[in-house]
Amino acid sequence: MFISFEGIEGSGKSTALSRLCSLLALSGRAFVRTMEPGGSKLGQSLRALLLDARNSIGPEAELFLYLADRAQHVRQHIRPALEAGSVVLTDRYADSTIVYQGYGRGLDVRELFRLNELAVNGLWPDCTLIFDLPPELGLERARTRNREQGIDVSEGRFEAEALDFHRRIRAGYLDWAARHPERCVLVDAEASPDAVFAQVSAIVLPRLGAVSE
Amino acid sequence: MFISFEGIEGSGKSTALSRLCSLLALSGRAFVRTMEPGGSKLGQSLRALLLDARNSIGPEAELFLYLADRAQHVRQHIRPALEAGSVVLTDRYADSTIVYQGYGRGLDVRELFRLNELAVNGLWPDCTLIFDLPPELGLERARTRNREQGIDVSEGRFEAEALDFHRRIRAGYLDWAARHPERCVLVDAEASPDAVFAQVSAIVLPRLGAVSE
Repeated sequence: MFISFEGIEGSGKSTALSRLCSLLALSGRAFVRTMEPGGSKLGQSLRALLLDARNSIGPEAELFLYLADRAQHVRQHIRPALEAGSVVLTDRYADSTIVYQGYGRGLDVRELFRLNELAVNGLWPDCTLIFDLPPELGLERARTRNREQGIDVSEGRFEAEALDFHRRIRAGYLDWAARHPERCVLVDAEASPDAVFAQVSAIVLPRLGAVSE
Repeated sequence: MFISFEGIEGSGKSTALSRLCSLLALSGRAFVRTMEPGGSKLGQSLRALLLDARNSIGPEAELFLYLADRAQHVRQHIRPALEAGSVVLTDRYADSTIVYQGYGRGLDVRELFRLNELAVNGLWPDCTLIFDLPPELGLERARTRNREQGIDVSEGRFEAEALDFHRRIRAGYLDWAARHPERCVLVDAEASPDAVFAQVSAIVLPRLGAVSE
């Protein structure tokens, strides 16, 4: 069982993912929590390059770096963990590239899908949770979090993008989810953390079968 | 005028490129000498990741890193230099990826061509010099050079590959050159450095027109 968590910054996906992991740990179910970019040793170097706002990176190069990160992540960690019988939970995956680079930056969505197919060698999640909320709210939450953690907002490249960009991302996630109803499930991320986690549990736990709430 | 230098390790292309640059500098012709991987600031970080034999990098991730390096190189340096009227001379370019990853590692050559088209946005060299010699000789030269420079041979990932791999690379370059006769010219790299440079001059200088020998 391979589950990805998607959504704009500040949508609460990482918080919900942490709570889900705590629950799985209590239940004794084997799981791996991972993330993109940065899910492999190579990926950690690439993540640092990608998220550093001081780096001037063109749209094609940015795309290929995300694909390199993903290809290594799948080959080195995700596929072996799945083959060993673990549940794999990832904070972002191929849909992020399709939505951010395609709907966000205007690259061709069909081409992006093809490139991702190549990077993941056909491995798509069994279930993708898409955390949906108005981008104004997500950005405000992300800014508050960054301030609390003492992070300069300008350090996050995507968070520093204009609101208009994040509106395209939200609309992109909704459009993309509608095109892949067999695995994409929307989560109302405007709700309280508890209410968001209740939705996540209701989506994920039945799919995991053995895990009881 | 955009010229790329291609060939296996130890084929003498970098030496010939240096001599050509000295000649162009004397003639006063504006030129830019560059290389892949590592032709941009981002690329220098990627080059370090790619050439470090300690990094475990799968074939898909390796491919995407080369493409990211190239895309940034083209966008940030090669295209602006050509638009400013410079001659651009690069030590390796898209053909390296097609030959090493395709003929060498077994990825699909047609797919590699497509991916490179995307990375370079249609910018192919006006002329590609392919330095051809038996791989045994090239590897021996590369080893001697590395010893002289105090480099541990195991540090160069490609140089540490088996001879069989380099045989496929040589055959790949020859096949690929035959498919692109409009821009690919073979250089007999088994000859002495002087004889090799004479061939390079005879190929390049007439194409540059204004430069006299």
